[in-house]
Order: sequence, then C-alpha cells, then structure tokens
Amino acid sequence: MNTKTGAILVLSGPSGAGKSSLISKIINQIGTTYFSISTTTRAMRAGEINGVHYHFVTVEEFKKEIEEEMFLEYAVVHGNYYGTSLGPVKKALKEGKLVIFDIDVQGHDAVMHRLSDITTSVFVTTPSLEELKKRLYARCTDSDDIINKRLEMAIREVQRISEYEYLVVNDNLDEAAQVLVSIAKAARMKIPTQTINEFVQVWTQQ
Amino acid sequence: MNTKTGAILVLSGPSGAGKSSLISKIINQIGTTYFSISTTTRAMRAGEINGVHYHFVTVEEFKKEIEEEMFLEYAVVHGNYYGTSLGPVKKALKEGKLVIFDIDVQGHDAVMHRLSDITTSVFVTTPSLEELKKRLYARCTDSDDIINKRLEMAIREVQRISEYEYLVVNDNLDEAAQVLVSIAKAARMKIPTQTINEFVQVWTQQ
Repeated sequence: MNTKTGAILVLSGPSGAGKSSLISKIINQIGTTYFSISTTTRAMRAGEINGVHYHFVTVEEFKKEIEEEMFLEYAVVHGNYYGTSLGPVKKALKEGKLVIFDIDVQGHDAVMHRLSDITTSVFVTTPSLEELKKRLYARCTDSDDIINKRLEMAIREVQRISEYEYLVVNDNLDEAAQVLVSIAKAARMKIPTQTINEFVQVWTQQ
Repeated sequence: MNTKTGAILVLSGPSGAGKSSLISKIINQIGTTYFSISTTTRAMRAGEINGVHYHFVTVEEFKKEIEEEMFLEYAVVHGNYYGTSLGPVKKALKEGKLVIFDIDVQGHDAVMHRLSDITTSVFVTTPSLEELKKRLYARCTDSDDIINKRLEMAIREVQRISEYEYLVVNDNLDEAAQVLVSIAKAARMKIPTQTINEFVQVWTQQ
C-alpha cells in the first residue's frame, strides 16, 4: 500500500537567511517536488523571468482570480498583490508531490488554516540579527533603506517562530540543507486525515 | 547558537512490525541517542538481560516509584506493571540527546500529555494485518494463543493511527529505516516552547 500522498513544506524566514539556496538543495535531493511560484501584480525587475520568479499578471487578472476563489492565500504588500494559486498546488498534491512554499508568516497562517494536516512548517533564520545584516549588505542587491525594512520585518517575523514546527538556523549552508532534506523526507510521511480511515479499513481486511 | 536541544521520538505499532530492528538502525545512524528502557515487575524470560530488555523490579519497588512520582507513564498489563522512569529521560534530554521510546498507544498518550512540544510520534506497521500474521508465525517465538492476542491488539492500535504525526509502513526494512532516520533527524529540530523565547531574545540582540 502506498502511503506517499502529496504533502506541503512551508519555509518562512527573513530575506537573506538563505531560503532560496536551501530550497534548490532540497529540490535536487528529493524527487517529485513542486516549488510553488507566487503570482504578483508588481512590475517585473531586471533579470526576472515570468513563470520562474513569479507569475506576473495585471491587477485585473489578479482580482478576477480572487473573485473566482482561485487563491490559497493572497496579500497586498506596498500596494502590490501577491498570491498563491490553488490550481497547480492541488494538481501537484494529487500527483503525490511534495509542494514547497517560500512564504511569509501571514502566508503560512493561511496555508495552516486550510491544509494543516498535510503541512510541515519550518522557520529558517541566520544565527543572529547581526549576521542577517552582514549577509544583506554582502549581497549588494538592496539599498540601505530596503535593508533596514528587511531587518525590521525580520524582527517582527522572528517573534512568531513558535507558530512553526521546526527551526533551522542556517549557520552553515550544507548542514542546514542536510537537516532540511530530513525534514522534507519526513514531511512526506505525515498522516493526512482524509486517507487514514481508508488505510485502516484496507489494513484490517483479511 | 545551538538549537539542538533534547527531543523525544516515540515509536508505536504492533509487535511484529519491526520496531526493534528499526530502532537499532536509527541508533546506529544518529549520534547522541538514548533508548528508554522500561521498568517492569513481570518475570524475566530466558535470554532477557536486566537493564537491557527491561529494568526488572519487584512490585514493592515499582509501587514506591509510583508514590515518588518517578514515572513518566505506567500501566498494568495482564497483572504486571510496566513503566517509564522519568529520571534517565530527563538526564538524557538535558544532555541534548534524542530519547527514543518504544511504547504502546497508551504510553504515547501519556508522553504527549506531558512533553508534546518536544515529541515526534511515529506509528510503524506492516503493509497489512495479513502480513503481520505471517511475520508473527514466521518468527516462531509465540504460541497461537499469544499471536491471536497480538493480532487483536494490533487491530485496536491501528484504529488510533490518527493520534500520531507520522505513519511508516514497514514493507522493506531498509527503506523504512531510511525514512525513520529522516524523521529522527527532523525531530531534533522541533521547536521546544521553553527555549523559543530565549532564542528570540538572543537573536535580536545587536
């Protein structure tokens, strides 16, 4: 009997904690994953690719999806819409894939509200705020203003770690990736409520 | 900052599902584990070693430990007392070890009641009741009467799978062990409520 049904892995944590690098490593080491790509109305930046970094849509298209209840969760940040479309997630779950989300604490909240029984959640952070600051300056992609906003956001998000199941401190990328791969493998064994009755019924047949 | 504090891994499941073999494999592949040995008043059987298979004590000694609240959980089964002493578990947790329990659904209930925030629980079973029956007969250690009792107990325990976080179907020992090692590694990253405030406080220090 195959108990490997689809499952969800949520990663949250400050920008600069290394989530993207960690997610790449998980995807390379675990088969049948699906990385959920967010939909947004914000302008595409230089180097971004539609369908890879985001699904870029117009405000009208986004509002239509809201009306049709096609989002698992959505939010407005600095005047731009960001959301997770339900369709591809459902399809991937049906195919038995591990669906990976890189979303913030609000997004995590929304996912837990609807799909907690198949969701494993991890908060990823640097060893300290000081280290996060260093990394954000070292990557030279953000202005001081943006970095300060990210740090403020990080302080707010860290306060909500206790809403997560696992905490991974990304001190060393390879070690953190190894731990996350274990969490991801375990996530696939989480017991989905909807299949448990069926399992018990089939199990006891003689 | 070291977030690897002690954690608990509970394994439950029918006798014959392969828990002992799986636990040996976990212990060999993960450092700093502590396998909790139960205390019992039942008579020692041929081949059993005191302090390895059980801590064998008298009924008087057991009752004294109950009075002194030294058990994490205890139960009476077929007139014999069985219990888990709290002392060694606390010590191992303090040393940052992963404490592994091979206990039944009642024992799991008791552990979750007191230590749910650091406990990861797994139900281990065979692919089917039929397969469990085969394995129990194949190992030639139990009488038909005992095997029937084990099967009845298995049917009762399987009904309570949904109380566990993870389900591992032991179809192939090596594959099941691999999955369990992942779950065990993940278990160590579980966020203990008591340390989270401290973490957040230290994290935000600049």
